[in-house]
Amino acid sequence: MQIATRPVWLDGGQNSIVVIDQRLLPHKLMLKELHNIEEIIDAIKTMVVRGAPLIGVVAAYGVYLAAAKIPLERDDFFDEIVEELRQARPTAVNLARAVDYVYNQVKDIRDSKERKAKALKAAQGVEATENERCRLIGQHGLALIEEISRRKEGAPVNILTHCNAGWLACVEWGTATAPIYMAHEKGVKVHVWVDETRPWNQGSRLTAWELAQSKVPCTIIADNAGGHLMQHGLVDIVIVGADRVSAHGDVANKVGTYLTALAAHANDVPFYAALPSSTIDWQVHECEEIPIEERNPNEVLFNEGLAPNGEITRVRIAPANAKALNIGFDVTPAELVTGLITERGVCPATEDALYDMFHDKAPNAQ
Amino acid sequence: MQIATRPVWLDGGQNSIVVIDQRLLPHKLMLKELHNIEEIIDAIKTMVVRGAPLIGVVAAYGVYLAAAKIPLERDDFFDEIVEELRQARPTAVNLARAVDYVYNQVKDIRDSKERKAKALKAAQGVEATENERCRLIGQHGLALIEEISRRKEGAPVNILTHCNAGWLACVEWGTATAPIYMAHEKGVKVHVWVDETRPWNQGSRLTAWELAQSKVPCTIIADNAGGHLMQHGLVDIVIVGADRVSAHGDVANKVGTYLTALAAHANDVPFYAALPSSTIDWQVHECEEIPIEERNPNEVLFNEGLAPNGEITRVRIAPANAKALNIGFDVTPAELVTGLITERGVCPATEDALYDMFHDKAPNAQ
Repeated sequence: MQIATRPVWLDGGQNSIVVIDQRLLPHKLMLKELHNIEEIIDAIKTMVVRGAPLIGVVAAYGVYLAAAKIPLERDDFFDEIVEELRQARPTAVNLARAVDYVYNQVKDIRDSKERKAKALKAAQGVEATENERCRLIGQHGLALIEEISRRKEGAPVNILTHCNAGWLACVEWGTATAPIYMAHEKGVKVHVWVDETRPWNQGSRLTAWELAQSKVPCTIIADNAGGHLMQHGLVDIVIVGADRVSAHGDVANKVGTYLTALAAHANDVPFYAALPSSTIDWQVHECEEIPIEERNPNEVLFNEGLAPNGEITRVRIAPANAKALNIGFDVTPAELVTGLITERGVCPATEDALYDMFHDKAPNAQ
Repeated sequence: MQIATRPVWLDGGQNSIVVIDQRLLPHKLMLKELHNIEEIIDAIKTMVVRGAPLIGVVAAYGVYLAAAKIPLERDDFFDEIVEELRQARPTAVNLARAVDYVYNQVKDIRDSKERKAKALKAAQGVEATENERCRLIGQHGLALIEEISRRKEGAPVNILTHCNAGWLACVEWGTATAPIYMAHEKGVKVHVWVDETRPWNQGSRLTAWELAQSKVPCTIIADNAGGHLMQHGLVDIVIVGADRVSAHGDVANKVGTYLTALAAHANDVPFYAALPSSTIDWQVHECEEIPIEERNPNEVLFNEGLAPNGEITRVRIAPANAKALNIGFDVTPAELVTGLITERGVCPATEDALYDMFHDKAPNAQ
């Protein structure tokens, strides 16, 4: 089996993109070709692809495919479908940002060839930028892990992570995993506690699989167990990703992140969110402004996995007719966040520190 | 289908007990006959029966069946197997307490008939006592719910519970559910947020099923979602059960309870544990002294449910060869507990308050 090491690429003829169908992992590594913006919208909604940075990159290619394939005279439809893509999922800000970026560069171009070329360049720019940001996040976060490793005199650094903020959620390196991969490559001993991350099991299905590809030691735990491990000194640092960060430093991320942050705070365990600046929403100043996605209750009521007959099978856990509420994300208030690991460095989760690091985003920036 | 309303009963001939096989709920309501102490040990270890009070009652009948069936001349074996039963699971203190109670009443009796009769009476006493305690817990807890209902002018009281502390975990009423059932019967509007309770899904499998039998409105949520709901004012009170409570008021309960308590504390949501005094371990003064069960990692790596073909099927969620750690319980420090609902009333989770309520247990009690 060929091991994929990135979750998206442009096909040879530049007429489609190929993604890993993340719904089938870890049981099947299946690639899916997406030929147009409609298929890309569907792939984002149904979580064929997921993860804030990856959604941004895939959506950027979605605008490219629309620009390449929708005739200029159908500009109304182009605008409409791009808007639909923009709203395919609500919580991650990377999606709207990437869509707007590519769209704004091409919407006024009245030559099809030029529009296509410009859209491709813009989409590839989004991808390259996100990649480079993840690499830099890795370097900055590595220093945090190395410091703990020195303090522990080389004993394994126990890192707890929630959901999947690995390369499957980005393009390369990942966000939360970037420092982990870099530490592992450098020979710094690490061990990762992987929260299974109900209800979609991104941790047990994706992060555990991803870390195993690189032979990073890891152990899956029920999300419920993190607090107990922290009470007993078994977690040195928490590193999670983010779907949207407010200008104030509040972190919207996969539901359950808030509980992990509370436990870290109560037990003096440092809690970091790792994110490219594309995840920071400078317009949002209060937690309450971040839209929280509510997904299909069946994700809670059913579970999907590999049956003894080798088939991926969906089983119902709950009683027939049971009701469920499926909240996708929660917001961790900045006060619980030790720091934000960004491509420009690590900073406290405060408005001042964020504007210090991103001068160009400050309200009074020239 | 006949609806069972208790999870254990003695069979007609008093030669076995019948229990609901809780591993098959909510998909199949199957009864299982347990003929001797060996089968009872196995049923407790494999979670055919679970829940601290129920484990105590079933174990009491286990000692009775041993007393009834093991000849007097095999007293060494009697002692040995009773000790094995006593240690079948480590965290719930009710188990050892019930076993000791029945055993101490019969161990010195040298007449088989008398031993059997006395053991039966003792086991039935354990059952009746636990039942009455649950009823009283219900009455005391009801007052808390009624108070919130008045404050909300009759709007539904949103109660969050973790794991299953219902009649399936006890004999009748349950502990955490007793106030809920009593409120519902009295016409006080309630709605229960049921934590699914990974990894064994006691919430989505058992509590949701149990509440549905009595038509109590409820909604299943991933354990991860409780914090978000509390941040948004959607939880009025948390009521959980307990497997062991220290003399200091610390609450050992299903893993994840600690995270729920942290979120309740952070959001000013009252957090109560409901428990019969048989769950209080007066010998334990520090959280760290409570033994925490580590169970088979497969409970984390696999999930069991009803497949489309109608068969209960176990599916693997995680990658092949993935490792997991399966911590069964955690300890919520007394500081996070608003109060303990016991058969004698509601009291703060402090040593002083507990000894005030249970004078007879105080170190200097006569």
